[in-house]
Amino acid sequence: MKSDESCIFCKILSGAIPAQKVMEDEFSLAFLDINPLAKGHALLIPKGHFVTVDEMPAQAAGEMLKNLPALVRAVKKVTACQGVNVLQNNGRVAHQLVQHVHFHIIPRNENDDFRFNWPAGSYPPGEAEALAQAIRKSIV
Amino acid sequence: MKSDESCIFCKILSGAIPAQKVMEDEFSLAFLDINPLAKGHALLIPKGHFVTVDEMPAQAAGEMLKNLPALVRAVKKVTACQGVNVLQNNGRVAHQLVQHVHFHIIPRNENDDFRFNWPAGSYPPGEAEALAQAIRKSIV
Repeated sequence: MKSDESCIFCKILSGAIPAQKVMEDEFSLAFLDINPLAKGHALLIPKGHFVTVDEMPAQAAGEMLKNLPALVRAVKKVTACQGVNVLQNNGRVAHQLVQHVHFHIIPRNENDDFRFNWPAGSYPPGEAEALAQAIRKSIV
Repeated sequence: MKSDESCIFCKILSGAIPAQKVMEDEFSLAFLDINPLAKGHALLIPKGHFVTVDEMPAQAAGEMLKNLPALVRAVKKVTACQGVNVLQNNGRVAHQLVQHVHFHIIPRNENDDFRFNWPAGSYPPGEAEALAQAIRKSIV
């Protein structure tokens, strides 16, 4: 699988730097985020080096993410959290800090420290239809 | 597949209510969020009714999420956004508003309206090791 010698997550995968591993198979690894947003904050990464999720072949994404439910179950059980956010950031503007695809599993509880807003808008007539059609045509 | 007649996403799946669909196969559907955080904000959902991601069998998660890269590619291409957040919320405390698993694909750009903080902490000596061991043992 593709590896990048300057990538900290590839170094974790090779064993060059340590991590608190929680789940591993042929295609993916999960370990604790060393700077957690909450206790039990875990990361799920592919063994191949991909910078953003859109770079991944379908099979690599499916093989990694089939493990997401079991990982979330285990994190919920151990932390006894009230909810979980799964968050994956692509690009600096989206708060991607490590250039290797990673899914954050973030335990949530009332009055915890992680916060996001939800500035929901709406589409003027016809715009959603045109946008959906353009996206449909761009699926490859 | 399991369906819930009170669920708005199951109604979209059955065709009882309309949606701007962008991608569909045997296991999953993607459509535009009717109240988008940004133009092109899409949702990817499983065809079976599961409330939270940890309820999903591994295969159902893998079959749905193998489509995530192609969906993110198409949304990026059409919206010409600078980044993308993939966000999946489990539980009210995590801002889950519809009780059927859905992955948000949120286009991001400089100075847009969606915001989250990143209150990263750290573990006292020994705590991460103990937590990782407990999570490892809870993976089933």
